[in-house]
Amino acid sequence: MSLQALLNPSSVAIFGASQNPKKVGGRPIRFMLEQGFKGDIYPINPGREVVQGLTCYPDLASVPTVPDVAIVAVGQDLVLGTIRDCADRGVKACIVMASGFGETGEAGRAAQAEMLEVARAAGMRIVGPNSQGLANFNNGAILNFSTMFVEIPPETGPIACISQSGGMSVVPYHMLRQRGLGIGHCHATGNDADVTVGELAAEVVADPSVKLCLIYLEKLQDPTHLARAAKIARERGVPIIALKSGRSPDGQRAAQSHTGAIASEDRIVDAFFERHGIWRAEGTEALVEAAEIYLQGWAAGGRRVAVVSNSGATCVLSADAIERYGLELAVFSSETEAAVRDVLPDFAASRNPIDITAALLTDSGLLGKVLPHAGGDDGVDMIIIGIPVSGEGYDVDSFARDTAAFAKKAKKPVVLAAPQDKVRKAFAAYGIPTFETEDAAVRALAQFSNHRSLMQKAAGGDIVVMTPGKAGETLDENRSLDRIAQRGVAVANREICKDVAQALAFLEVAPNGIVLKANSSLVPHKSEHGLVRVGLNTADQVESNFRAIQDKLADMNVPFEGILAAEMVPSGHEMVVGGYLDPVFGPVVVVGEGGIAVEAMPDNRLLLTPFDENDVASALSKLRIGPLFAGVRGAAPLNTEAVFAAARGVAELLTEGSVQSVDINPLITTPQGAIAADALVEQRTPI
Amino acid sequence: MSLQALLNPSSVAIFGASQNPKKVGGRPIRFMLEQGFKGDIYPINPGREVVQGLTCYPDLASVPTVPDVAIVAVGQDLVLGTIRDCADRGVKACIVMASGFGETGEAGRAAQAEMLEVARAAGMRIVGPNSQGLANFNNGAILNFSTMFVEIPPETGPIACISQSGGMSVVPYHMLRQRGLGIGHCHATGNDADVTVGELAAEVVADPSVKLCLIYLEKLQDPTHLARAAKIARERGVPIIALKSGRSPDGQRAAQSHTGAIASEDRIVDAFFERHGIWRAEGTEALVEAAEIYLQGWAAGGRRVAVVSNSGATCVLSADAIERYGLELAVFSSETEAAVRDVLPDFAASRNPIDITAALLTDSGLLGKVLPHAGGDDGVDMIIIGIPVSGEGYDVDSFARDTAAFAKKAKKPVVLAAPQDKVRKAFAAYGIPTFETEDAAVRALAQFSNHRSLMQKAAGGDIVVMTPGKAGETLDENRSLDRIAQRGVAVANREICKDVAQALAFLEVAPNGIVLKANSSLVPHKSEHGLVRVGLNTADQVESNFRAIQDKLADMNVPFEGILAAEMVPSGHEMVVGGYLDPVFGPVVVVGEGGIAVEAMPDNRLLLTPFDENDVASALSKLRIGPLFAGVRGAAPLNTEAVFAAARGVAELLTEGSVQSVDINPLITTPQGAIAADALVEQRTPI
Repeated sequence: MSLQALLNPSSVAIFGASQNPKKVGGRPIRFMLEQGFKGDIYPINPGREVVQGLTCYPDLASVPTVPDVAIVAVGQDLVLGTIRDCADRGVKACIVMASGFGETGEAGRAAQAEMLEVARAAGMRIVGPNSQGLANFNNGAILNFSTMFVEIPPETGPIACISQSGGMSVVPYHMLRQRGLGIGHCHATGNDADVTVGELAAEVVADPSVKLCLIYLEKLQDPTHLARAAKIARERGVPIIALKSGRSPDGQRAAQSHTGAIASEDRIVDAFFERHGIWRAEGTEALVEAAEIYLQGWAAGGRRVAVVSNSGATCVLSADAIERYGLELAVFSSETEAAVRDVLPDFAASRNPIDITAALLTDSGLLGKVLPHAGGDDGVDMIIIGIPVSGEGYDVDSFARDTAAFAKKAKKPVVLAAPQDKVRKAFAAYGIPTFETEDAAVRALAQFSNHRSLMQKAAGGDIVVMTPGKAGETLDENRSLDRIAQRGVAVANREICKDVAQALAFLEVAPNGIVLKANSSLVPHKSEHGLVRVGLNTADQVESNFRAIQDKLADMNVPFEGILAAEMVPSGHEMVVGGYLDPVFGPVVVVGEGGIAVEAMPDNRLLLTPFDENDVASALSKLRIGPLFAGVRGAAPLNTEAVFAAARGVAELLTEGSVQSVDINPLITTPQGAIAADALVEQRTPI
Repeated sequence: MSLQALLNPSSVAIFGASQNPKKVGGRPIRFMLEQGFKGDIYPINPGREVVQGLTCYPDLASVPTVPDVAIVAVGQDLVLGTIRDCADRGVKACIVMASGFGETGEAGRAAQAEMLEVARAAGMRIVGPNSQGLANFNNGAILNFSTMFVEIPPETGPIACISQSGGMSVVPYHMLRQRGLGIGHCHATGNDADVTVGELAAEVVADPSVKLCLIYLEKLQDPTHLARAAKIARERGVPIIALKSGRSPDGQRAAQSHTGAIASEDRIVDAFFERHGIWRAEGTEALVEAAEIYLQGWAAGGRRVAVVSNSGATCVLSADAIERYGLELAVFSSETEAAVRDVLPDFAASRNPIDITAALLTDSGLLGKVLPHAGGDDGVDMIIIGIPVSGEGYDVDSFARDTAAFAKKAKKPVVLAAPQDKVRKAFAAYGIPTFETEDAAVRALAQFSNHRSLMQKAAGGDIVVMTPGKAGETLDENRSLDRIAQRGVAVANREICKDVAQALAFLEVAPNGIVLKANSSLVPHKSEHGLVRVGLNTADQVESNFRAIQDKLADMNVPFEGILAAEMVPSGHEMVVGGYLDPVFGPVVVVGEGGIAVEAMPDNRLLLTPFDENDVASALSKLRIGPLFAGVRGAAPLNTEAVFAAARGVAELLTEGSVQSVDINPLITTPQGAIAADALVEQRTPI
């Protein structure tokens, strides 16, 4: 069912309707009346005949038509009965405000499950429980009890805030309304028992009035819907910024397994957002900071910034910030420099950043004269105007007017950095995004530029949904190597040797010498127990080391299952390629530096499936050791294709469903190729 | 001379005095009159008899007493004559406001030098040129023409802002005054031709009214004075926060040499600030963000934070931010948890972070009841109160009053995070530092905690001032190794071999084999030319490789100066230890990962001299490969003492003055020791 009934209801019933507009059951009615909701409002309260001037009904049965939506603002103990009434009458969706369900203990979870069962049987949708409610300011459908809409009055506009938390739905509402921006949607979904933030977002970003979507999540259990929302948003050019806080229990569980410790759940979220073009905000500030820039409809451009200021310090600080946040200080063409030099007095700087100096005081027109040259240069993608000090004599209104005239023509991001309120207000009045400091201005431009480029590159794609399974047997090294070899991963020639004679025969066909290892899934850290002997070239060495491993196993009371003899692999860089099945996101593959670095000095990246060689190349290039894959000091680059082949093999094993996790470490990588020198495969069994 | 005359003048003359209080020569008079300056003010202007109600003098000779300070607010062409007059009359210090001196071209630099010569001959001090002036709001000595003191009126207080840039002296002034904080000093020194920011800071931080000192620098040419300022500040417990922008020409020069490219000038500044307990702000925001916390006089504590909020989302976001900014979420004792559980309703969380929930609405006293338990726990060093949403029914004033009462007793940092102005104002009225978001609150607490700990650990010490010198001859490998060996750095046994016979004889006494290398300072990248042959064990190998190197040198037209034979060094981790003489900061030593990592994947730290083994251990521990010096997966740790010995040797060579730069790469480091396998020493000659 589409969620349109929740966003554009033709009629709304309120269980627990209150005459008091300051109560949970009173506020939605007050808001709908204030905000001009055109549909029917049916207060339900057996104790009253009129509520806030509206006819009040004793129960749902008495309501003259079937309401699209019911707001359930009754106590926890009355919720289930109310849900049943709604289901019976054919209500399309309920918003359950009471808490005390899935977010509490066992009993709460059971009650939540029962509520869902009733609703699903009737094809009725549930928002919540524990929901503050939905608010669509475009049509006055304020099915929401937040006090924040009293604190700072609504004004509709192009921004949507969608949040699991009530608080974090109205914090961005407040911060943005404070800045004079309009909010069209402000929804808090609560426990996401049925309707999730992702599903709601898919509906909201399709609303033609929405131009920017802010999301707050504490758990991301529904990536399929969110991926769909992101796809719709990308098609409409609507940026989604998500603040995902905390770590889920699933993530904690995953972190306990070996590969999981590398691939923490939070990094899967990063990878998921990146893949779908969603910008991940680090905190509340980053969620709202760049809003004005997004709303201008500026096209995605490059990362080269021009700076114009009346202060040399602002020029230097802006250049520092541009480097710090990963943008580039634009280099002007010689024509631009000449034109700027022509306009400015001799002592001013005509190169980027442009210090107009206090000459702006004597000639207020200087900014307007410089901007078309500096900002118009083809090598400039974005422009920062810095006015750290303005006082007597500065014609700020004319600066702002000239800037706006330029911005209108240039169609490039132009922003102001100024600590003084009055300067910011003057520019904001002409529609220019303003920031208190050059740090904030550069940070916001960097986010905008990075996010636009992320949206352009976003591969999207569906989440791989796995049938349920659980971790099974861990295979020994030999069988593990077999499994990955079957998937096209290169492994060393090897043989399980039952006795010394067999090992000696293997040595005969291994010109580079051999390694002997105990082959047992019972001993995970073989090296630390002296169960790995490398670089054996002579019969004597093979014999004595074979016996030493046998003795050691006997000491440890580990049954002898043969010793794995393998050809020595030519030296190379130790990489790791691994992966596991995440219960929410499906197959997750890890590529990075291997060997001892894995735990103590981790340097690896996550990949969600499906991925191609470009994705692996991109992940490798972002590693600290990324330069090795480009070639360092004339050395040939390490072989990306071979690492990709290993990663693809791991992804295939995971996707087919019979493997829970894979760990190839080390994958000895050279310019010529990559050979797995050790592997560990954990099976998976269906449940 | 002390700079007291500049900060507490008994009389001030103003050259270029203006009747118009909006002009550069008028504003200082206006400000001194408005701010109740008690000393004598002598306007000097041949065209007027009275200026702003004060007797005006035609020239300095007519002024009745010798003024302590002269403000030189005349045009650039008149400055030198004015300075001569002041020097002749015995004025103690001049503030030169005109620009067009050292910051411009050759002529300006010459004029600046001449001005200085005149002043120095007379023992007179110069602030500027190109200075906006000094302003001491404690006594009304506003020798400053900033319009910002009109925009937002001064109010004296415990904060000092000292800046080279005029703009960046009043930007923090504005941002802090806007927040209601008092500024006692606001100085802009301009070109720092004579009096530098560092020297002025040493005077200002000794002022008993100063409790926080903010500095803005574009060049740091005077570390000795700034080190002295930092020492005085540490003794008085006054934090210094410095925003150092840009990179100096010296730094650019240094970056061009090989070791210099590792040790960029900017990182020396980092090391210098760290050593002297100065916090380096990344940008304008960080310069001012934590001011209110610093001013509370809270003692340096630990890094464990408790969070109390009426919103679960704020709890999660705060915990995220605490991790992000490197603080710790405090763990309550079981007594604390029990006490909190006792106070709060069942559904609230009694563990840290504490979610009081909307129960705060029904019982406004809950915050006051929880705080003494949560905040009083011995495992809690700092407390964040998060109130993201407050509206009808919330008794914010009582929250603020209870918080202030707790803070007074607890003597621990307690701050508020709240996006709503009215909530922040209520807490600020009780003296609690407030922030708009939990990000900002945590960031500020982290800065405070880190800075206090930096101040406690700061070693301080004098800058090593070197006699002038310039880079000289680069020694060949053998002589380079000799030089470092003389300073106690372990090097491999080696011998310059004139012919194959000598090399074969050397092989006899080298049981692990030898390496042969061309020994010439004319070929810097020996490996890339095939001039290094390692792992030679047999006479055949030695002979053929010796001849191969000889042939290659002949091909390259490099004169044969013998071939360096060295014993093979046991394998270990490749480190780099190097250093160079910085023209401002003296000897700078670099320790880090060596080999190919040096350029492509740099991982190294700078050390200013003198340093001890603890400093080296600390630098090594901060490397990415730091874990190797602690021991990884049961392996013995790499030998810190041996790396220290090499670093000490390099520091000694640099400090004695005959060496410009040293590069030991690789320093093969094992658990047992470290052996230099290659070195390059660049001599230095006096000038």
